[in-house]
Amino acid sequence: MYRVHIPASSGNMCVGFDSTGLALQIYNSIDFEARKSGLVIEMDTPAPFIPTDGRNLIVRAARRAADRMGKRLPGLYLKQYNRIPHTRGLGSSAACIVGGILLADTLLGAGWSREQVLSLASEMEGHPDNVAPAIYGGVCISAKAEDGYLVRPVPVGEDLAVCVAIPGFTLSTRKAREVLPASVPMKDAVSNIANMGLLIASLYERDYTHLGAALHDRLHEPYRKTLIQGFDDVIQAAYDLGAYGACLSGAGPTILIFLPAGKQDFERQLQEKLRSIPGGWKAVLTDFDRRGAFVETL
Amino acid sequence: MYRVHIPASSGNMCVGFDSTGLALQIYNSIDFEARKSGLVIEMDTPAPFIPTDGRNLIVRAARRAADRMGKRLPGLYLKQYNRIPHTRGLGSSAACIVGGILLADTLLGAGWSREQVLSLASEMEGHPDNVAPAIYGGVCISAKAEDGYLVRPVPVGEDLAVCVAIPGFTLSTRKAREVLPASVPMKDAVSNIANMGLLIASLYERDYTHLGAALHDRLHEPYRKTLIQGFDDVIQAAYDLGAYGACLSGAGPTILIFLPAGKQDFERQLQEKLRSIPGGWKAVLTDFDRRGAFVETL
Repeated sequence: MYRVHIPASSGNMCVGFDSTGLALQIYNSIDFEARKSGLVIEMDTPAPFIPTDGRNLIVRAARRAADRMGKRLPGLYLKQYNRIPHTRGLGSSAACIVGGILLADTLLGAGWSREQVLSLASEMEGHPDNVAPAIYGGVCISAKAEDGYLVRPVPVGEDLAVCVAIPGFTLSTRKAREVLPASVPMKDAVSNIANMGLLIASLYERDYTHLGAALHDRLHEPYRKTLIQGFDDVIQAAYDLGAYGACLSGAGPTILIFLPAGKQDFERQLQEKLRSIPGGWKAVLTDFDRRGAFVETL
Repeated sequence: MYRVHIPASSGNMCVGFDSTGLALQIYNSIDFEARKSGLVIEMDTPAPFIPTDGRNLIVRAARRAADRMGKRLPGLYLKQYNRIPHTRGLGSSAACIVGGILLADTLLGAGWSREQVLSLASEMEGHPDNVAPAIYGGVCISAKAEDGYLVRPVPVGEDLAVCVAIPGFTLSTRKAREVLPASVPMKDAVSNIANMGLLIASLYERDYTHLGAALHDRLHEPYRKTLIQGFDDVIQAAYDLGAYGACLSGAGPTILIFLPAGKQDFERQLQEKLRSIPGGWKAVLTDFDRRGAFVETL
């Protein structure tokens, strides 16, 4: 029996709209082994909305990977431990896709490189923003290249931590995409470019003095926040508690908060403030995943 | 007698449009000393287009700085050594402004920080894209902040060198600005953001494998290159000779070429190719200035 762990991920990292994602220490895990035939999928906690047949996203990804490897997948037993919340902008589908591919790679002994996993996973997800950090960990920049994507993992210091504020409501990525304009003022584009540079430099320098300013986005957050009840109040609460900066996670509605490592009391303090903000917000103190998805033998 | 050296600078660094500049080892120098009264300005080589009275940009910058310091400038003797070509996108005006401010700082003993020099110089130039690298050296990212600008100098490895291809014709910044659209497709903005991230990460990692792809701009170069005779041919010639990447310097018409350090033959080889490209192009092998403007006592 094997177990694969795949971190939650957040696309955009605010100014890095449609290009920069990060991995979080919240994991989906999947126990798996080969069977002679058939498909058995179990959940550690009830998840009636997840298909337990061939429509299951993990299985679909595993089959696509097997096809690409030119091999046939055996019968399967899976048990899913779902810890990444759904449709909250935390990359639960990316985790299933990456998990499925790594499952196939393990059972079929293909020995795929991370680049190969990334290539198929990006194809299935439609973009590498979430699958890249789910595979590499840390922060990943992805750019479209002539043939596929260029991905650069950026190291993240141990002195930077993350808290997520997850609301009680969901927001579909489709809806969050529809509010975006097809073209944007040049000066807004320039602002994001400059801030993207500051953001990446801040991570390398481990100097977070201007992280809040660097996270200031003009291309998607101003449009999307109108769909998210309590957005400005949550951001303000984070700053009031000494966060470096805060922004939408992916297409939302979850909010990512960056703070100095070691602030163990932050979660409790934030939760207290969130109680008075409508939307059923919940604070979860976590951290960057700095390793990426991996398989262990049980 | 003092001498101030100010490096040439190039704005944009391609994808870092209106936000990222770099300093080059091409210098304007100014000898200066206080006189009881009057103003004497000499040139080491004839430069009839440079005013030698109060309209001189160095003098204007020095006077603005003195005002800001709450002091009065004495009489002045200046001698200009102009090595940065004019109206070619290499920051000759930024060099005069920074030189003038440092002159005032030296003669009036103000002891200004680089941040103070930057603040006034950006104000006079209208933006920090050129003055920031002229002051700090290396590559500088500048972003508009609530009160002024945030500037982050990024270190540049000794293994990366620069060659400039300077044409015989000029291009006014005003004209190069007029061809730009006021708004741009969102996907072009996203492409530049991703590439800006890759560019800054490449500099920190000292991994230039994808520098060429990272320099691929969609916001200004495609519009401006139509004004520059031979642009595509010069870029192609640079790649043919093993350059990592190439792009417009500032608003043009000069082209910046990034290459591995130590290619001493590159200038000669490029010059050979440039001969068959119309526009009177001249190759100058240089390097990043990594120190920024400084004053010495003669």
